[in-house]
Amino acid sequence: MLSDLLIEQIVRGALLEDIGRGGDVTTDSILSEDLVTRAAVVARQPGVIAGHEPTRTTFKMLNPSVEYEILAPDSAMIDDGTAIARLTGPARAILTGERTALNFLSHLSGIATAAHSLVERVEPYRARIVCTRKTTPGLRTLERAAVVAGGASLHRYGLDDAVLIKDNHLALSGSLTEAVTAVRRKIGHMLKVQVEVDTLEQLREALQLSIDAVLLDNMPLETLREAVSVVDARITTEASGSVTPENVAAIAATGVDLISSGWITHSAPGLDVSMEIDLHR
Amino acid sequence: MLSDLLIEQIVRGALLEDIGRGGDVTTDSILSEDLVTRAAVVARQPGVIAGHEPTRTTFKMLNPSVEYEILAPDSAMIDDGTAIARLTGPARAILTGERTALNFLSHLSGIATAAHSLVERVEPYRARIVCTRKTTPGLRTLERAAVVAGGASLHRYGLDDAVLIKDNHLALSGSLTEAVTAVRRKIGHMLKVQVEVDTLEQLREALQLSIDAVLLDNMPLETLREAVSVVDARITTEASGSVTPENVAAIAATGVDLISSGWITHSAPGLDVSMEIDLHR
Amino acid sequence: MLSDLLIEQIVRGALLEDIGRGGDVTTDSILSEDLVTRAAVVARQPGVIAGHEPTRTTFKMLNPSVEYEILAPDSAMIDDGTAIARLTGPARAILTGERTALNFLSHLSGIATAAHSLVERVEPYRARIVCTRKTTPGLRTLERAAVVAGGASLHRYGLDDAVLIKDNHLALSGSLTEAVTAVRRKIGHMLKVQVEVDTLEQLREALQLSIDAVLLDNMPLETLREAVSVVDARITTEASGSVTPENVAAIAATGVDLISSGWITHSAPGLDVSMEIDLHR
Amino acid sequence: MLSDLLIEQIVRGALLEDIGRGGDVTTDSILSEDLVTRAAVVARQPGVIAGHEPTRTTFKMLNPSVEYEILAPDSAMIDDGTAIARLTGPARAILTGERTALNFLSHLSGIATAAHSLVERVEPYRARIVCTRKTTPGLRTLERAAVVAGGASLHRYGLDDAVLIKDNHLALSGSLTEAVTAVRRKIGHMLKVQVEVDTLEQLREALQLSIDAVLLDNMPLETLREAVSVVDARITTEASGSVTPENVAAIAATGVDLISSGWITHSAPGLDVSMEIDLHR
Amino acid sequence: MLSDLLIEQIVRGALLEDIGRGGDVTTDSILSEDLVTRAAVVARQPGVIAGHEPTRTTFKMLNPSVEYEILAPDSAMIDDGTAIARLTGPARAILTGERTALNFLSHLSGIATAAHSLVERVEPYRARIVCTRKTTPGLRTLERAAVVAGGASLHRYGLDDAVLIKDNHLALSGSLTEAVTAVRRKIGHMLKVQVEVDTLEQLREALQLSIDAVLLDNMPLETLREAVSVVDARITTEASGSVTPENVAAIAATGVDLISSGWITHSAPGLDVSMEIDLHR
Amino acid sequence: MLSDLLIEQIVRGALLEDIGRGGDVTTDSILSEDLVTRAAVVARQPGVIAGHEPTRTTFKMLNPSVEYEILAPDSAMIDDGTAIARLTGPARAILTGERTALNFLSHLSGIATAAHSLVERVEPYRARIVCTRKTTPGLRTLERAAVVAGGASLHRYGLDDAVLIKDNHLALSGSLTEAVTAVRRKIGHMLKVQVEVDTLEQLREALQLSIDAVLLDNMPLETLREAVSVVDARITTEASGSVTPENVAAIAATGVDLISSGWITHSAPGLDVSMEIDLHR
Repeated sequence: MLSDLLIEQIVRGALLEDIGRGGDVTTDSILSEDLVTRAAVVARQPGVIAGHEPTRTTFKMLNPSVEYEILAPDSAMIDDGTAIARLTGPARAILTGERTALNFLSHLSGIATAAHSLVERVEPYRARIVCTRKTTPGLRTLERAAVVAGGASLHRYGLDDAVLIKDNHLALSGSLTEAVTAVRRKIGHMLKVQVEVDTLEQLREALQLSIDAVLLDNMPLETLREAVSVVDARITTEASGSVTPENVAAIAATGVDLISSGWITHSAPGLDVSMEIDLHR
Repeated sequence: MLSDLLIEQIVRGALLEDIGRGGDVTTDSILSEDLVTRAAVVARQPGVIAGHEPTRTTFKMLNPSVEYEILAPDSAMIDDGTAIARLTGPARAILTGERTALNFLSHLSGIATAAHSLVERVEPYRARIVCTRKTTPGLRTLERAAVVAGGASLHRYGLDDAVLIKDNHLALSGSLTEAVTAVRRKIGHMLKVQVEVDTLEQLREALQLSIDAVLLDNMPLETLREAVSVVDARITTEASGSVTPENVAAIAATGVDLISSGWITHSAPGLDVSMEIDLHR
Repeated sequence: MLSDLLIEQIVRGALLEDIGRGGDVTTDSILSEDLVTRAAVVARQPGVIAGHEPTRTTFKMLNPSVEYEILAPDSAMIDDGTAIARLTGPARAILTGERTALNFLSHLSGIATAAHSLVERVEPYRARIVCTRKTTPGLRTLERAAVVAGGASLHRYGLDDAVLIKDNHLALSGSLTEAVTAVRRKIGHMLKVQVEVDTLEQLREALQLSIDAVLLDNMPLETLREAVSVVDARITTEASGSVTPENVAAIAATGVDLISSGWITHSAPGLDVSMEIDLHR
Repeated sequence: MLSDLLIEQIVRGALLEDIGRGGDVTTDSILSEDLVTRAAVVARQPGVIAGHEPTRTTFKMLNPSVEYEILAPDSAMIDDGTAIARLTGPARAILTGERTALNFLSHLSGIATAAHSLVERVEPYRARIVCTRKTTPGLRTLERAAVVAGGASLHRYGLDDAVLIKDNHLALSGSLTEAVTAVRRKIGHMLKVQVEVDTLEQLREALQLSIDAVLLDNMPLETLREAVSVVDARITTEASGSVTPENVAAIAATGVDLISSGWITHSAPGLDVSMEIDLHR
Repeated sequence: MLSDLLIEQIVRGALLEDIGRGGDVTTDSILSEDLVTRAAVVARQPGVIAGHEPTRTTFKMLNPSVEYEILAPDSAMIDDGTAIARLTGPARAILTGERTALNFLSHLSGIATAAHSLVERVEPYRARIVCTRKTTPGLRTLERAAVVAGGASLHRYGLDDAVLIKDNHLALSGSLTEAVTAVRRKIGHMLKVQVEVDTLEQLREALQLSIDAVLLDNMPLETLREAVSVVDARITTEASGSVTPENVAAIAATGVDLISSGWITHSAPGLDVSMEIDLHR
Repeated sequence: MLSDLLIEQIVRGALLEDIGRGGDVTTDSILSEDLVTRAAVVARQPGVIAGHEPTRTTFKMLNPSVEYEILAPDSAMIDDGTAIARLTGPARAILTGERTALNFLSHLSGIATAAHSLVERVEPYRARIVCTRKTTPGLRTLERAAVVAGGASLHRYGLDDAVLIKDNHLALSGSLTEAVTAVRRKIGHMLKVQVEVDTLEQLREALQLSIDAVLLDNMPLETLREAVSVVDARITTEASGSVTPENVAAIAATGVDLISSGWITHSAPGLDVSMEIDLHR
């Protein structure tokens, strides 16, 4: 429900960034205010679509009378050349919003496509792909929706909706036991606690404590497999560290519950999309 | 001068996005308020650095007493393992800000590195690499600075600081001549006008008009070379369309003044950077 | 760490609300800009203190040179007449900020005092007192801190950091089983799920499902006791509904883990506090 | 006229506080986007209603298609069980907005009810009940409307729309005479001046000056009566200090024009209201 | 006290308006970051100074290390060539802020000068000059301070801090008597009521009612004089309508208490001020 | 396209400034919520109209059902007594918005009128009148539109959309040649460069450099004429300095391309406009 309030805020910032204070001097000079047109948003490479909400909001914020018809919805797998959406309305709003809108659609579809490339490789296994907090500053809400559109799952949103005790916390605090005890004393009963471990020894210490999940960071496959066996399904296991389409199936085969990937949000190339004016109305 | 006002706004949004309403429940539970530490930001792969300003601002906004010492400044080319910055200050602020700060540094250094990979390939030629408006929504200011850190140059900021008449404008207006005339009548004397052309015929029409630059879009190398010859240095020439590290030198060899690349901003993978707590104080 | 950003935003709103556009016409007319004074914030009734952060921020935002010394910190139980804080600085800022600052301190100390009145009555039992989302619009961050200052614990912050399936959800969805299944499919692994039940029958159905806690709503003491026995410590039990200082011990005696109270946030009377100018400097 | 702009701002803050960044994960997982329902807002105790505007705005901001029909308007005195409003519309918006909306309605109706409990006791007398600036930070606009809904009147809004010279001002300035003179020299002709006095002697000094009203602070009934006689209707008289439903009639009987109460805004318990899903459509 | 919060908001808007998103490309390209300079702000015509606060804030917001020394304070009457302020600090901040700062100083000093030109002409009389709500949108706070710097007085700030019943209100309501009665029933005891009258007949009706001031709109001098006599000092009298330096003394001679002028805020020409770089450090 | 987003922001600020927190206490007390009226906005002196957009937005923001019919559009030259716009809708919104709306219309029409007074005097010549950055803080967007409505043209918007090297830059940098070289190295190819010169000698140096325009500051007519001859149409020439309706034709007669005037924005008197309630519906 909230997304509308947040999305409008993000889109407003993006539009002001592009249009500035002086307005679209090109479009406003060339096209008359009452010119109406149709246009199509078309994919220039195959992928998975995400980002229709901010894309539509971009045009609507410029002119509420723009009609935005979704042809290939979020989560759809499309081929090169597929028409993703059709626009009808004032030509000025459509041209002025074009770049900002496509920037959203390209970026988010790129993330959905990357996520899906991992998801499809782990389908034979129990493991689910989850995202991380390695997102683009300001776009986490949208990027998490793109991750879900790509078939992956969500990790905690940020620093306040779950506890994750990482190596740097342990480097600065006494011990894992003390850290977990301190956390449990402070947080409410509705927050989960996860601990990052690098070795099986740490894992065994962690399993003595009141935790809900364990992050097995950068472990070799062999160690991962043993870790899964040590945990024995008592808590959730998550593998992380340099996950790629190439190695993700092997990681999944170790039996972990979750595989987290920062790559799908911080390094996914944009999906190539463009807008074509349709003159045959 | 403005950048401070804008950067603070962007960083505030990024921090609120990560920390939410409840605060960093992990760090606040485990570490005491007066614990002080040192930490190092370290590169995990070679590249070109960009983004120190938002990175430093992230920590400073959480606690002004954090000291942020730059070891490898923006534009520096670094190797895997290079220490990029050193932090000293309250441990809570350093751990709470870690992810947000690294998200800025990784994303922007990734762009600088991508930009540089094109720049170094065109060094023998007159062509400069320039960015486009295909930036991540909300981060254009920072991404343009990263492009410059990578050695490339700037195109117009947005829709209001220069005129660019593109194919979609021409599809909707009468003719190129009418479009340029309309634009010149409306804009002030301090704005430049560029026109996108797809063919040599269009180019010849454009050259009759009062324009400052021409965008040669998606032309084969042969055509590009001829276009440069037709223009004969009277106005600025810019080549665009599917520029990659592989083909950029060949494009530059045609003699164009500028080569624009959306890839350096919309598809650059993040540079791998991490933070290490330094216990030997 | 975040609290500073959020607290400043709340305090700015409160100050603008009181000072308006014209400024404090009384103080600015009567007192010279360079007059310095001391003042004491004094309790006029016994209670538990909370709210020093927004109180101090109020004065600091008007003039950073105001010194605010805490005499009775958050969580302190104080008697009528106790000096809670001492102020030194520009008289204008101290008088202009007086009412806004005391409004924060009174409201939040009232909540801490109410929370503590429940907490002290359940000390012999395992049950902890927890707050609800029945907070004053705009002040949840501060009110939750006041609840903690009063010795009680926290429930979920809002709608996004945990799942709570309530009677109205069940009235509109198919069944509890379907609802829990739908939730588990959508949410990440780091969010907990709680279910509200009104009867032992519902409780037994809930216990078959993958949930972390159960909310036993408005049950008679007898039923509560039986519910605790049915749950048998497998998941967290929370009692709610018309909790008062009078009945809270009896509820705790049933063996529930948590007792939630909306009363401590929505109906706590303000603690009477006032500011006295101290002329003997 | 303004209230809409201000109310939307307050409601937006309250919704963002509850829904956060992740949205209502419970409702969004369980209920489909196109499910429509009816619901009733029902009082669980007798009282006076206030707050329909922010309550309605809460639902409308989530989804403009929610219909909000007022059954018991602001100022209405209702019994336990009375239906206050009827909702029809998307089930998601109704459930997501439920707690935020009821928090407004409960808090503001509690204030209206408290105000009315004083107002009805002074009906035989000339005295009117007025509110103070002891309001909840951020909600003054709404709380003042609730005070009016309860039948009481308004004091100055804040520090800029009238002058009130209080004891702390006098402690820091030379004399009452000097203070009033300074104020009159600075302010425009459209602002009124009130002075707080603690003794009849101060009152007599004040009456020599150009003031519009006097605040008789914490005076015994006997002294109050004498003060009213001394003033002899030349200026407005206001009694303040520990006003309760028990003593308010006696205070009114002294003949004062106004009786101000902080209690009605800072300590009024919330009115118990709840929302029931109505399945018989 | 508030003014700082409001002034910072106004100055931030003005700076963002001038500097945009790309920064001061001229200054940043030419001057090094560590160049320090001195500069003087100098008047190019005689007048009365106002606006040091926003002027100083402009430079400080760009760089807190800029020193701003006031040479001719607000309210000072200066000659052509007078140095108004001296600046020392980073050359970039001084040049980037120059235009925005001077725009404030020129505009506000122009208003102070215009106000003073009326004030000095009515000195022999009891009448004070007051401003109106005909201010430049967004700058009322600053313009009212400039009016005071010019020696004039303040009318109500806006629509909420006093009542002014104007001709258009009367055109739409029943009668003046009904209007005043309605107003008195609604507003608190701390708001004053003024009524606009065009004729002596209206004036006599108004004097029967509970009002604090009367606005004698566009009356000939003869009628004004008679109106003053009719009022006989019972309430405040204000003359308005086409007040100029030429006719203001004649209006004052009628004996009115106040003369209001929109001209001093809506039509005052800017005072010519410029900034000179001082190279002899 | 952007203007709507920016205009709404400016109008919201102006309304909040006038209506404050308490609302229009006069109108709300006297007129019922459902009273509907018609009104006309009428000019009280001849001039050129500008500002319909913010004027209409003011009323619409108070109540979207107000109809605003434009009778004399932006750019129209009107006589004393001309009806500029007709309003129909809720009387409360019309009266509450009256002053804010007229403040926009008067201020902006005053600027259009001033601009036109210069434009009409240079019609026989090639010179166009252009505005400067000497605008009222916060209103540049609107004032530039008013300048265009008056028939004049636009200079750069702010510090980031073009380069203007002024005397103060040269005072602090080495030489004009170095300054232009530094600028060209930093800026993109789409920004123009203008240089301010005070003498023919400076002009000759400037003409050796890569610049697009020259600002001939405060030159005597004789020198101006010679400067135009020296430039010989190679770059754009702009004259500035104390331009008035009296001397503008003589300046234009020198043959310069542009004449810039700060006077049209910083010192234009407001156009006298008022609103009349129309009772004959």
